[in-house]
Amino acid sequence: MTRTQQLQQEINTLISSQKFNGNPPALYAPIAYIMEQGGKRLRPLLTLMACDLFEGNIPDALYPALAVEMFHNFTLVHDDIMDKAPLRRGKETVYKKWNADIAILSGDTMFAMAYQYTLKTKTQLVPSILQVFSKAAIEVCEGQQLDMDFEKQEEVSIAEYLNMIRLKTAVLLGASLEIGAVVAQASPGQVKAIYDFGIALGMAFQLKDDLLDVYGTQADFGKVSGGDIASNKKTYLLLKALQLADDQTRKSLKSLYRSDNQTETTQKIKQVKAIFAQLNVQNEVEKVMQTYYQQAVEILAHLEADEVKKKELADYASFLYSRDY
Amino acid sequence: MTRTQQLQQEINTLISSQKFNGNPPALYAPIAYIMEQGGKRLRPLLTLMACDLFEGNIPDALYPALAVEMFHNFTLVHDDIMDKAPLRRGKETVYKKWNADIAILSGDTMFAMAYQYTLKTKTQLVPSILQVFSKAAIEVCEGQQLDMDFEKQEEVSIAEYLNMIRLKTAVLLGASLEIGAVVAQASPGQVKAIYDFGIALGMAFQLKDDLLDVYGTQADFGKVSGGDIASNKKTYLLLKALQLADDQTRKSLKSLYRSDNQTETTQKIKQVKAIFAQLNVQNEVEKVMQTYYQQAVEILAHLEADEVKKKELADYASFLYSRDY
Repeated sequence: MTRTQQLQQEINTLISSQKFNGNPPALYAPIAYIMEQGGKRLRPLLTLMACDLFEGNIPDALYPALAVEMFHNFTLVHDDIMDKAPLRRGKETVYKKWNADIAILSGDTMFAMAYQYTLKTKTQLVPSILQVFSKAAIEVCEGQQLDMDFEKQEEVSIAEYLNMIRLKTAVLLGASLEIGAVVAQASPGQVKAIYDFGIALGMAFQLKDDLLDVYGTQADFGKVSGGDIASNKKTYLLLKALQLADDQTRKSLKSLYRSDNQTETTQKIKQVKAIFAQLNVQNEVEKVMQTYYQQAVEILAHLEADEVKKKELADYASFLYSRDY
Repeated sequence: MTRTQQLQQEINTLISSQKFNGNPPALYAPIAYIMEQGGKRLRPLLTLMACDLFEGNIPDALYPALAVEMFHNFTLVHDDIMDKAPLRRGKETVYKKWNADIAILSGDTMFAMAYQYTLKTKTQLVPSILQVFSKAAIEVCEGQQLDMDFEKQEEVSIAEYLNMIRLKTAVLLGASLEIGAVVAQASPGQVKAIYDFGIALGMAFQLKDDLLDVYGTQADFGKVSGGDIASNKKTYLLLKALQLADDQTRKSLKSLYRSDNQTETTQKIKQVKAIFAQLNVQNEVEKVMQTYYQQAVEILAHLEADEVKKKELADYASFLYSRDY
């Protein structure tokens, strides 16, 4: 078993040992439902890996890692209401299975539980962990708001889009790693570097997600294929396509994405994908994704830490980069 | 100016000095809107008063007090979505003025901001403050869930109702005071006593709220009069009425509260109030409210602290008890 697999197992064991069910059942059943689904659990793993990288004490990082995972799942529960997403990890979303009110309130409880988990570590670490955690939490909300704003906004630049995914996705990967480094009492330079590594990795990760939403299969990815197209999300794929398209194609594309467009969803996804293929935007996204991934690899290469452990993190980053789910 | 008024002014000054507006505007405008509305701001005042009572340093308690107020307002923003409440403090609720998605996300941001405020005090106080704060936050969610469950539940006992309002309302008043005591580094006995005082006061406070919802005027109270009746809330008034009523009256009352009842809302409120009057339930609620208030007064009387400051808190409790808004 690799060190990464060991750490992954520590996370899974901790999560399995938690009693998410409680009273009132209507509040806690959705929490148990989503937390026991699994998912990649990559954020808590990053916390442990960063702690390990800087020679920290893994048990001190376990609950902060769980806090990050709980927070991430809370954002999914609330985002799925706003995005009206029916599926998540191949299962019904909380708001679909129960209702929006329950999804709101169970999500709120998860947020408070996440904070409670951050307290289960060495007392002197708590204020610094919370600083990182709260800042990230606010930025994730800002990112989600921008994502919603963009759905209604006529023009979105690629720079605006990249800023949005930085806030919505990359920041939490950065914070997950930063919290691990804080637990290990790494130097300020190391803390900054591992955060920056997380941001670059997070950007690549989200661009991969955008690709998988269109080109992944539902069985692997666990969400509805083409969901971003169906809900008129302005992803990098779309923005690049609008940039590369001739006037005629741009007009067709814009009309397909108009909120009053009447094209049946499967048809709409098919037509949009045809335009994407014609403009070869998949290749364009892969290029920018590669740039971010390379950035992450370089930050890691320059980081002062044990080479074996750096290799573990580099391998995990490479795995995330090449995943197809 | 009394000491209480001075402390109230410190809160108001702190809140006025905050910049709640930020980017993206769609996320922060609702936060500024609700935070700048005013309201009683009784929870942060309780934090400062408890800190003062135990000879703490008021500046250390200011941001934790703001955290409590921000958290309370966050719960209002989310509760108003679930309760479909059109008015709050005489103004449109956030979900009505914007929409549910924005109310969800602005609320989430407020929750994260509340946690961020708790960090703006002496570092060594942070873990204890957060312990109190997170426990209360989870209990408030449990209370809100029970409140929603009760709307659909055929039979609710008075004991169940009292437990619900303890969680939904009293716990946060207790926690507000406890946080002030923690900042002042009061003894464990003092911390427990001031929390218990807050619970008793909070119970009286919520029963008063139930009364005002039915018998207050909208201009004073800032909510729709009879809103609890309109939304089939099982309040103490209703539960007591069901207990005291003869079979015939109980049947009428139950039928008025049935979710498929077609009576026009103003009519329904009028008919329910007539039954309440006939059974004199207002008097019954006042009796139990008086019991809790008396409990609070006695806990305070036995508390080891400066008599002048105890008097300030007792006077404020009396003011809350006799308020009519």
